[in-house]
Amino acid sequence: MSGKVLVYSRFPKAMMVPIGERYDLLDSKGRALEKVFSAAQLSEVRILISAGATLLPAEVMDLMPSLKAIVCYGTGYDGVDIAAASARGIAVGHSPAANAAAVADIAMTLMLAVTRRLLPADAYVRSGDWAAAKPSPQMAPRPGNPGRRVGVYGMGAIGRKIAARAAAFETDVAYFSRSRHDVPYRYVDSLAALAEWCDVLIVAVRAGADTHHIIDADILRRLGPDGYLVNISRGSAVDEAALVAALTDGTIAGAGLDVFETEPHSPDALTAFPNVVLTPHIGGHTADSHIAMQACVLANLEAAFEGKPLPYPVAPGS
Amino acid sequence: MSGKVLVYSRFPKAMMVPIGERYDLLDSKGRALEKVFSAAQLSEVRILISAGATLLPAEVMDLMPSLKAIVCYGTGYDGVDIAAASARGIAVGHSPAANAAAVADIAMTLMLAVTRRLLPADAYVRSGDWAAAKPSPQMAPRPGNPGRRVGVYGMGAIGRKIAARAAAFETDVAYFSRSRHDVPYRYVDSLAALAEWCDVLIVAVRAGADTHHIIDADILRRLGPDGYLVNISRGSAVDEAALVAALTDGTIAGAGLDVFETEPHSPDALTAFPNVVLTPHIGGHTADSHIAMQACVLANLEAAFEGKPLPYPVAPGS
Repeated sequence: MSGKVLVYSRFPKAMMVPIGERYDLLDSKGRALEKVFSAAQLSEVRILISAGATLLPAEVMDLMPSLKAIVCYGTGYDGVDIAAASARGIAVGHSPAANAAAVADIAMTLMLAVTRRLLPADAYVRSGDWAAAKPSPQMAPRPGNPGRRVGVYGMGAIGRKIAARAAAFETDVAYFSRSRHDVPYRYVDSLAALAEWCDVLIVAVRAGADTHHIIDADILRRLGPDGYLVNISRGSAVDEAALVAALTDGTIAGAGLDVFETEPHSPDALTAFPNVVLTPHIGGHTADSHIAMQACVLANLEAAFEGKPLPYPVAPGS
Repeated sequence: MSGKVLVYSRFPKAMMVPIGERYDLLDSKGRALEKVFSAAQLSEVRILISAGATLLPAEVMDLMPSLKAIVCYGTGYDGVDIAAASARGIAVGHSPAANAAAVADIAMTLMLAVTRRLLPADAYVRSGDWAAAKPSPQMAPRPGNPGRRVGVYGMGAIGRKIAARAAAFETDVAYFSRSRHDVPYRYVDSLAALAEWCDVLIVAVRAGADTHHIIDADILRRLGPDGYLVNISRGSAVDEAALVAALTDGTIAGAGLDVFETEPHSPDALTAFPNVVLTPHIGGHTADSHIAMQACVLANLEAAFEGKPLPYPVAPGS
């Protein structure tokens, strides 16, 4: 099995190694295709690999008239214009659930760390403030997990794993998603009601146009001064300016964020808060989840080259 | 109900408020009793409150010939000479399991944070290194939780809650304790074998003379270069010099510590590592667990004043 595969997004080198061992990679390193490749080269491209969040609109597809498959590395495919792909007969695949455990684990890590002020606690030890018995408002006892109301927004593979993990901490778990699922957690029939009810709101919804800035000033106000926001979905789901305002005036108690409206995220108002924990979009980024995602990518590529249906197609509306 | 209660350890002010509302407190603020109180005052003391880790030897008991009860705030009572108390007819009580969930939660927080390099990840965002795409070895993908071998040392109330939480992360949980328990986790028949087997060793054993430095260079060598140590028990259980050596030469991969041989802990070799997470003995330190511990303390005090058996007596050998 061999063939040419266009690498559309900028990926860390190591992620493409197992794919490069089986296919010839035309690596754009994330630059505009027409600046890196000739029209002749692009006209031969049948298959490309993309990070799901990278914008891939109709006009880019039209640079590659032979394009038959877009294979997203990871679960997300929010950057791909699915309707445009469909209209052009281009299959779109991804790596469903391959990184669900790793992402759910980051969600829990963020929730636990921010609610117990882990970062200020570590700094309190390292700075010598503990040894000096220096008073610190960050070290005051805070509510624990038993009985804590955890609201999970989105009940896909990741949301389910978050709910199962959160429940093990003796919390009370409820969720909202477009439809009710057969899961042992209470269903709340709107995001607003979920935010009103919960102490920690974990955003695990699949991102898209319908979820753009869905976590806005109103939702944050409902979450309230003892409430925490955790986002491991996409930065676009949260109105970041509203979040900064809510953290500034104490509308909410804190936040744990693995994703941002603009990535990579630069130091700004958000990075100045002590009551936030910020990670550089590493949710799915474990050794085992990369192996699982690469297996999905390779299986999608193999099928695409053989002209067969992709084994891991995206399922919009799911 | 009222009476005089000697406060033997140095406690944060807030912790004694609900107790001071019901009893007259003679607060030593952790200073030597004979320097703070007259012999006449001490001769009248019938009941004292201590933090379990504070050394309370026979000679201190002998300063208080009327002493009838030692009430420990918290689960531990390792500082109290139980045999000496028993010989003098002094009852010893504590707050069993009242803080078990809070301590188990810190154990999980430390495990999750250190294995995913949460602190370097947060620093990577805040410093601008992410925005600058600066390479960082700390950000390399690492093994995730599914299939990870978690070894729990000690299967009391805290160990059980740690095991239940860890299992929810799709890990493989085993334990060692002095005796086999009716729990759904594999029993390994020695600490050495548990360390050899596991990827993360969580120390949740009740501290005492028999566990002093039980985590030594040999156990750390068995844990190995991909292994992590988490300690939420007592600092005395770990040979801290051996731990520093093991972190220095890569004998183990990292550590999460809530407790230290000397507390409060000062900046030293341990606080210089990027692959450790350090918290200032805040395991049981949540608002709800303080309420639960205070309820145990108050119940023990009430019974002691009425000359009844303590409702929450310590059970050495359990």
